[in-house]
This record gives sequence, structure tokens and C-alpha cells, in this order.
Amino acid sequence: MKRIILLFLFIPVLIYGQDTIRISDLGLSPGSRVNAVPFVNKAMDKCKGKTNVVLVFEKGRYDFWPQYSNEKDYFISNTNYIFPRYCVFVVEKTKNLTIDCDGSDFIFHGRLQPFTVDSSENISIKNVSIDWEIPFGAEAEIVEVNPGYFDLKIDTKQFPYVIENNKLFFVGEGWKNLWGGVKWNDPMQFDRETLEVTAGTDDDLLGENWEKKYNARELCEGVVRITYHNTGLLKKGNYFVLRHGYRDHAGIFITDSKNVHLENINMYSNLGLSYLAQYSENLTYLNVNCLPNPHRKIISGHDDGLHFSNCRGQITVEGCTMKGLMDDSFNVHGTYVIVSEKVNDKTLVCKFPHFQSIGMIWARKGESVAFIDGQTMKNYGTGLVESVQLKTPETFEVTFKDVVPKEVKTSDALENISWEPDVTIRNCYFGNHRARGVLISSGGKIIIDSNTFESSGSAIVFPGDIKSYFENGPIKDATISNNLFKVSCLTSMYMTCEAIISISLEVPAFDAKNPPIHKNIMIFNNTFELYDYPALYALSVDGISFSNNKMKYSNMHKPWHPRKFNLTFEACRNIEVKGNVIEKDVLGKNIKLLQTKPSELKLAKGQGFLIE
Amino acid sequence: MKRIILLFLFIPVLIYGQDTIRISDLGLSPGSRVNAVPFVNKAMDKCKGKTNVVLVFEKGRYDFWPQYSNEKDYFISNTNYIFPRYCVFVVEKTKNLTIDCDGSDFIFHGRLQPFTVDSSENISIKNVSIDWEIPFGAEAEIVEVNPGYFDLKIDTKQFPYVIENNKLFFVGEGWKNLWGGVKWNDPMQFDRETLEVTAGTDDDLLGENWEKKYNARELCEGVVRITYHNTGLLKKGNYFVLRHGYRDHAGIFITDSKNVHLENINMYSNLGLSYLAQYSENLTYLNVNCLPNPHRKIISGHDDGLHFSNCRGQITVEGCTMKGLMDDSFNVHGTYVIVSEKVNDKTLVCKFPHFQSIGMIWARKGESVAFIDGQTMKNYGTGLVESVQLKTPETFEVTFKDVVPKEVKTSDALENISWEPDVTIRNCYFGNHRARGVLISSGGKIIIDSNTFESSGSAIVFPGDIKSYFENGPIKDATISNNLFKVSCLTSMYMTCEAIISISLEVPAFDAKNPPIHKNIMIFNNTFELYDYPALYALSVDGISFSNNKMKYSNMHKPWHPRKFNLTFEACRNIEVKGNVIEKDVLGKNIKLLQTKPSELKLAKGQGFLIE
Repeated sequence: MKRIILLFLFIPVLIYGQDTIRISDLGLSPGSRVNAVPFVNKAMDKCKGKTNVVLVFEKGRYDFWPQYSNEKDYFISNTNYIFPRYCVFVVEKTKNLTIDCDGSDFIFHGRLQPFTVDSSENISIKNVSIDWEIPFGAEAEIVEVNPGYFDLKIDTKQFPYVIENNKLFFVGEGWKNLWGGVKWNDPMQFDRETLEVTAGTDDDLLGENWEKKYNARELCEGVVRITYHNTGLLKKGNYFVLRHGYRDHAGIFITDSKNVHLENINMYSNLGLSYLAQYSENLTYLNVNCLPNPHRKIISGHDDGLHFSNCRGQITVEGCTMKGLMDDSFNVHGTYVIVSEKVNDKTLVCKFPHFQSIGMIWARKGESVAFIDGQTMKNYGTGLVESVQLKTPETFEVTFKDVVPKEVKTSDALENISWEPDVTIRNCYFGNHRARGVLISSGGKIIIDSNTFESSGSAIVFPGDIKSYFENGPIKDATISNNLFKVSCLTSMYMTCEAIISISLEVPAFDAKNPPIHKNIMIFNNTFELYDYPALYALSVDGISFSNNKMKYSNMHKPWHPRKFNLTFEACRNIEVKGNVIEKDVLGKNIKLLQTKPSELKLAKGQGFLIE
Repeated sequence: MKRIILLFLFIPVLIYGQDTIRISDLGLSPGSRVNAVPFVNKAMDKCKGKTNVVLVFEKGRYDFWPQYSNEKDYFISNTNYIFPRYCVFVVEKTKNLTIDCDGSDFIFHGRLQPFTVDSSENISIKNVSIDWEIPFGAEAEIVEVNPGYFDLKIDTKQFPYVIENNKLFFVGEGWKNLWGGVKWNDPMQFDRETLEVTAGTDDDLLGENWEKKYNARELCEGVVRITYHNTGLLKKGNYFVLRHGYRDHAGIFITDSKNVHLENINMYSNLGLSYLAQYSENLTYLNVNCLPNPHRKIISGHDDGLHFSNCRGQITVEGCTMKGLMDDSFNVHGTYVIVSEKVNDKTLVCKFPHFQSIGMIWARKGESVAFIDGQTMKNYGTGLVESVQLKTPETFEVTFKDVVPKEVKTSDALENISWEPDVTIRNCYFGNHRARGVLISSGGKIIIDSNTFESSGSAIVFPGDIKSYFENGPIKDATISNNLFKVSCLTSMYMTCEAIISISLEVPAFDAKNPPIHKNIMIFNNTFELYDYPALYALSVDGISFSNNKMKYSNMHKPWHPRKFNLTFEACRNIEVKGNVIEKDVLGKNIKLLQTKPSELKLAKGQGFLIE
């Protein structure tokens, strides 16, 4: 009886507390194939001014074209700058909004950003698959390999192409991309059976300057002959991914927002980073996936999968699958900015060092900033921000409350330490993709637990990069536990792939005499399926434990990695290795200490590790 | 020497007299696949205010999407009313503009009107092919015919479809059309060899209510089984055209304009009438064509080819090819409006009687209007317009300078006789299309000379229609000479197809006692390839001559037409038949007089015609 009374008391709250807007009430039916964008605009207008709304799509297919999309000027981290960005769902200055798509398929056409969450709080997007009619990347089957050429079978409906002046161009709705027209878009080969990047192949599949040297000719509809010298790496029957085009829109873009919840989302295609959050706080992703649409074999997102730039609070990623991505599966980092001018003892001019991360409001009044030696990544002090003024998209002026350290000099870096998220990655899968699995650059509490990795390069990388991509910051507290690193891990070489777990530094002048940059990394209860030597490489860590892990042997692939040690510690302190179980056939069974005093290693007995 | 001097005198005129705007200078290159529409808008803006401009496209492919197209509110004759119409090129209030596309391919995507010429003078559009990536009509090959079903092979790239609830839907860029969802869109069968509408088949190919009765099922990609009782008319190997969707945009739309010149244009597809002019004056079309794109077999325009509604001055159509149209090739007519109320002795309320011809400013001050008996089409007076006021899209009020005739009554019609063009059709081809060839309803000087006809229905129709489509007016002076009517003519039945040349009246109550409605029709030096009887049917003509024509026999098809006479004159006066040559096997060799006194026929001797 009490329960019933309670129920009756709650019902009005449920009914009156929340507005439900049904897209069907605005005239849009699933499967109609009309451009859904004007209906979405109408729905978002209706949401404005309300603070507790659920926007509901009836299950089905919806199509989206650029017409009537919102033209926005955004600087999007790790993404090329273009204006305008064509945005479909724009959740802007909104609180407590849920977009529930009921398992619908959202099919996009042309250059678009499906979802944008900007300056909003308590936003939930769920139950949707995102795909493009014509994806921004093509896959083919290798049907012939010969000394002077190879033939590709391409589904011309999904991946329409034209050949002009002996070059292959992919064409879509409002775009045309030369295969080989964009740097870094090297082709990839995937194994016919495992759908993994073919072991022993990587970005260098066709060697240097392939894009200038190849010729394309159509043999018949859907079969293209690529005239090119045989690099010996291509195999008939395998899949060949032809990457093309710029990254200039994200899949789901979250900026300057708080408490964003994504759930039950499949991203089958896009033209940039799949899930990109920047300057946002408290992000929860449950069953949020990148994977190839069942009617494709390999490709999903154009670049990274889950990407967090300059975020803070708690990032939780659980039960997510990252497959078929053409770049790293997961990346969380801040952005180092470089001092280009000392205006006075409180004011610096800084520049964004990477062209794909510019134009951001990098810090706000009251935030803490660390001063970092640009050569060694040494932190030599902190300051409180008084104001930040963007001067150009590439440069800004920052004034501190107090005088900045005397050491500050041009080419030193700043790190915004007010934006260092805690990260939990649990029960996820990372595989069938190019490049690295999980990249972490954050001083927050990092938990990588109970995941399965089949990443082509390293499974986990702590890159510590102040040289190439300038993605801060160093690790201060990380746990890597209960993960399964399957035999496909580290079958290809990419940047900083020193071992399955690769803790590294990208600095102009590393000096082992300085105190370590990374701290407190616990690696335990993981299973490594090893066909090669390197399981762990750790550079410049103070406090690292490798314990209770299983190391199994597989002869699935040929060992190839230049590093011939299971565990390598370089310039590390306070190392603990204990309780690990190593199968007898595991190669090496050894530990290498580089620039590390043997006394820094506490090695438990009876594991069979040899110190070299 | 003189020539050189003249040349030097002219060059500055050529250079300074005309502005040339190159679309490439505005940043658009051929073959780029980007949406050309914003560049076109920029170009049209640049043309504004100038009076002598050539807009030049470099030869190549250009693509057009609805994004950034001009959203206009037009009433378009013989076309469904929708708002907005999405218009790409809009030439508005412009003088002396040439758009020269240098032989380019313009590929449209989605529901668009490629060219609109509105309230402009001396406009020339030339050297362009117009097509759609996904056309608004589908063609298939009949691969199996069985008592209970037939199978269609459909190119899913050109004609993508989905099947839902056992019904076939064609889908395109922003649209989805149920096959059978729009009245009149009956399917058509075309002969595999000749590509003509299969002799003996027409709109009734599948009988009544086929759209409700059929079931569709996909056997494999691109093969669809239509479960349906066998009408005995389908033949394996033939082509089957699945018409679908509404006509709501024209291909080239000319309204309220003067001196428009079209030249060297191929229209491969569209979603309405191909070349539609209304309330315009002096129109010259040279080598202006509708035909299937070489990568298709049958279909070109969705409906009519060359259509002129309420035009005046000289219409010249020369060297044009009309193939693959799903409605009449050529139609020139005015619009009868029906008197719905006599407000006072000078003012009438009129309504547009056909839903696809509404909203027009039907007449202007000073124009002459004829008063027409709504039952018999008898003209019983004229009046001068003082003013016209649109009341709703369907009705308007017209006030005359003088008192209107006393006879004017509700349901009588008005004809605007100030808008009756002279028409010359020369050296054209009309064939491989549904319905009739050339329809003329104009009291101007009509010349149909040196054309070739392979129309499915009648080759030439003077419909005189005040009952069905209300397309005025009667013929006053027509010449049909030197034409070749090939054996495919009149192999199918459509409205008013009484003979290869069918001069008719669609009136509620025809009375042979009234004076004839049509006048002065000269038919000479033509060649008729006849497999059946009827070459000419003439109803209600005063002054008709059929002379020096050749009538050949062919056994290509079986005779089927209910009219068993070569020449039929009904309610005619002043008939002349002379100098004709009839091959011996021609069926009938006879003339039928209906409600016509034998004394009205002057038949020259020795031609072999029997009067029945």
C-alpha cells in the first residue's frame, strides 16, 4: 500500500518534470529518406529554454544532408581547421537534455558533424548508429599481386571512384579525394581471416613516395590495377584500405561541457575523430563503439576513436569496442603550449605548436599552469592564471597572478594542470585497427582494467610527448590490471611502439640524470600473449610495479621487434617485478635495465626472469 | 587591308561590349565534385546590374546539391504546386545574359530545378548536358515472365530501391517514392531492339489497380520479383520503365520572359517537364534535346519534353531530338479558365480548372480575351481586360473595359487570345517515348515541317481540349509538311489518339451543327509508313487539305486501331484531298466522312481512295 502511494506521488514528477519531444510529432517519420536536418533544427529550437527535455526518435533509418545544417566556427582539437563546420545536432548552452534514438540508424551524406555538444551540462545521447552512405575511406580486396602491379576489387556502390591522369580518386557527396593526396594517409593491409592489420606491415606498406609513383587503371567496373613495384608485403585475398581525405569534422564533438553521457552508440564511419571531447568535464561512455558496418569488412572511423583533449573530472569508458579505426583507439591528453615571448615578468605570449590543435581558449582565470622545460620536460614551477587573450588562432597571451619563474624562456612549455582528468577504461575491446590502442597523457588517476587488446601497434602507450604532437602530461598514478593483451598486439611498428605497454617520452633532449617524469604505474594481473619479446618498456618512471601477470607464448607470428627483452626499464627508479608467471616457451624471459641502477629493481625470486 | 581595319574596329567592341565571368575565376573547377551551387550564386550576383554578360563554364563535370539553392515560390504550369521550389541557376530581371557551359555535364542531386529564367530578356543558355546522379524514374530488364509473377533486373547503383511491406520503393537523395504511389505513373514496356514502347502496350500494361495488387520481393541484389497475374503483354528481354514520384520541378523553366534562346542542350533526366516556358515571348530552341544518357537504355525526362503554356510571339524549335520521355514530346497551349461567378456586367470570377495549372497571372490590362461556350467551345465574343486580381491560387477576378457579352454564364470559359504563339517545328525527331508526339493548341501560325516521328501514340494532335486539361486554343492556321511518320507511330493507345495526325475536340457537348472550331490545316508532302488504317482524323475543321503525301505500307505490326479508315473527316467543311500516292498494300485506302456533307470534300481523281 505504501509503495502504491509512493508510486502515485512520483508519477506526476516523472510526467511534469520532463518534456518529451518526439521527432515524429514534428513531421519526420523513420525511413522517409527526406533530409532530417530541418526537423532536427525544429526539435532543437523546441528544446531551447527548457531544462529537462528528452528528444525521442522512433526506431528506424534517418538521413541527413548538409542542407540546413548549422554552420559553425569551431576549433576542434587534433582536427584540421576549416570554416564552416557543418553541424547537424547542435546542443548549445543547454542543460539536462537526453537525445534517445531508440536504436535508429542515422545515415549521413557529405561532410557533416553528426553531434555537437557545446557549453552544455547533463547531456545524454544514446541508442544510435552513425554511418555515411559513402564513407570517407575505402576498402578493397587484393585480387592479384604481381611484380609490377596489384589489382584491387572495390565495391563501387560503397566506394565510388574515378580515375584521372592514371590516379585514383574517391568521390562522394560533395567531395573528391585523391588517393595519396593527403600526407599520413598511407594504405593499410588487413588479414583476410583475422581482419587484423597484417602482421609485419604498417604505414610503410608501399614504401616511400608511393603516392607519386603509382598508376591506376580500371580493368573492369570495380577492379582497379595499381601499377607499382612489388614491396613483397601484399598478399592476394587480403583486404586493402585506401585512406583518403582530411579530418575536418568529428563524429560526436563535445566542447566546454560538463556531465556528458553517451550510451549504446555505434559509429560506423566519419571524417575525423569519432568521439572527441575537449575542455569538458565528467564524461561517461557506456557501450560506445567504433566498428565497421556489417556490410563492410574493415573500416570504421577515419582517425582516432575515443579522444579527450584538455578535459578534467572523471572520464569513464566502459564496455566499448574500438574496431576498424585508421588511427589510435583511445587518446587522452592535454596540450603543451610553447612560450614564444616573455612580454613582462607576469605575461607570456604562447603558441600552439601543432597545426591541428589551435584556436582554443587554453586556460581561464584561476587555473594552475606548470612551467616545463622544453628540452627535458622537467617541471620547474607553477603559476595561477590571471587572464588569457587569444591573439591569432595560433598564439595567445597569458598573464599570471604572480611573477613567473625566472627560468621561463622561449621554447619552454606550459601545461594546464587544472585540466588533468581521472580516467577509467574498463571491459573494452581495442583491435582490428591501425596504430596504437590506448594513449594516456594525464596526471589524474588512471585505471585501465579488464580490457582486451588486439591493437596493431602497442596496446597501451604513455607517450609523454613534448616534441611531436605536444600532448601533455606525464603520468602520476596509473593502474593497468586484468587486461588481456592478445597475440595480435604489436605486430606492426608505429611511433613509440617500444613494447605492448610502452611508457615513453618524446623530448628534444632526454637526460637520465634528471628525476623521472612519470610516476606510480602499477601493472598487475594482466595476461600477455607473446610471440615476440617486448611486453613492457618504461622510460623515466619513478615507481613502477609489474606483478602477478601471466606471460604466455604463441608462435602465431614471427618475432621482429628490435627490442629483445620482455621488460625494459630505462632511467627508472623504484621498480618492482613480482609474482609473474611466464610460460616456458616465452622468448627472452629477460629484463633489461638501461641507465637504471640495478638497485632500483626489486625482483622477486623464482619467476625465471634474467636481468641483462 | 579593309578587312584588317574592320577587324581592329570590331575587337574593342567585342572586348568592351561584353563582360565575361568565368566560373573558374570564382574558384570552381570542373570535376571537383564539390557543390557548385554557391559558386553559381556568386556568379549570378556578379551578373546583377550588368546588361551584357557571358557566364562561362570550362568544359567538364559539375555537381549540384540542394544546399544553398534558391528557394522560390513559383506556380509552374502543368506541374504540382509545392513550396519552396529549389532552383539552381536563377536568371531574374536580367537582360542580355548568355550562360555558355562549353559542353559540360551538369549532374544534379536531389529535388532541384536546374535553370530558371524569370522576368528576363535576351537570355541564352547553351552547350550543356543535364542529368541526375539518381534519376526520377527507373528502368529494368524483364528477365522472367511467368503466369504468377515477373522478375525485373534493376541497376541498383542508378536506381536504388528498398522493399518494405512487399512494396517497391525507389530511393534517392532526399526522396523515397513508392512504385505505384502516384496516379498516372503507370509502368511502360519498351521493345528490346527498337527501344520503342512495345507495340500494342500502353498505360494499361498491368491493367487496373495494379499498384494495389502487386507484391515485390528481392531475389538477389538487383533482381526483384513482382508477384502479379500475367496480363500477357510482358515479354522477357524487354525493358520495363517504373515511373514514380510527383512532377514538381521543371528542367529549364522560363516564365514572364522574352527572347530566350536555348542551344545544344541534352536533358537526360529531371523531375517534371523538361523545357517549360510560360507567359513568355519569342523562344528559340536549337538542338535542344531530351534523351536517355548513354549509360541508360530508355528513360529521359519525367514527363513532357518541350512544353509552352500561355506563350506568344514566335516559338522556333529546330533540330531537336525528343526520346525516352514519359509523357508527350511537345505541347503548346494556353489555359482555359472557367467562369465561376458573374460579379457585375464587367467583372467575372474565374477559376483555374486543372490543379497543375494554378496561381498564374492569367491576363494583364489591355489583353484580349475570348468568351467561349463551355459546352461546345464556341467563341461568342471578345473583351479587353482592365484588371486582374488573384484571389486564391485557384481563383481570380477579371474586370473588362466594356460590358461582357450577355451570354456569359457560369461554367463558360475564357481564352486569352493575346497569348497565341506562332510555332515552327523543323528537323526534329520525336520517338521512343510514351504518349503523343506534338500537341498544338494555338491560334497562331503553326508550321510542322521536315520532322521524323516514331511516337508511341499519335504523332501530331490538335486536341482542342476544354474538358480534361483545359488547354486552349483551336487551330487557325497550321501546316504539316515534309514529315516522315515512321511505322512506330500510333502503336499504342492514349487520349485523343484517333490517327497518326489527330485533330480533335475535347468538349462536354459536341454539336456538329455549329461551325467548325479548327480552321485552315494544310497537310502535304509527308510520308506515312502505315501498318494500320488511320493516318488522319479531323474533327470540326473548316478548311483542311491533305495533298501530295506518300502512304507506304509496312507489315511491322498488327493493325489494331478501331478506326478502319485512312482519312476520317468528322463535322468538317472545305476538305481537299489531292496528289497523294498510296502504296498498293496500304490497308483501307479509304476516306470516312462523318457528319460531313460529301459536297464538302474535293477529292482529286486517281489516288485510289474509296469514300465510305
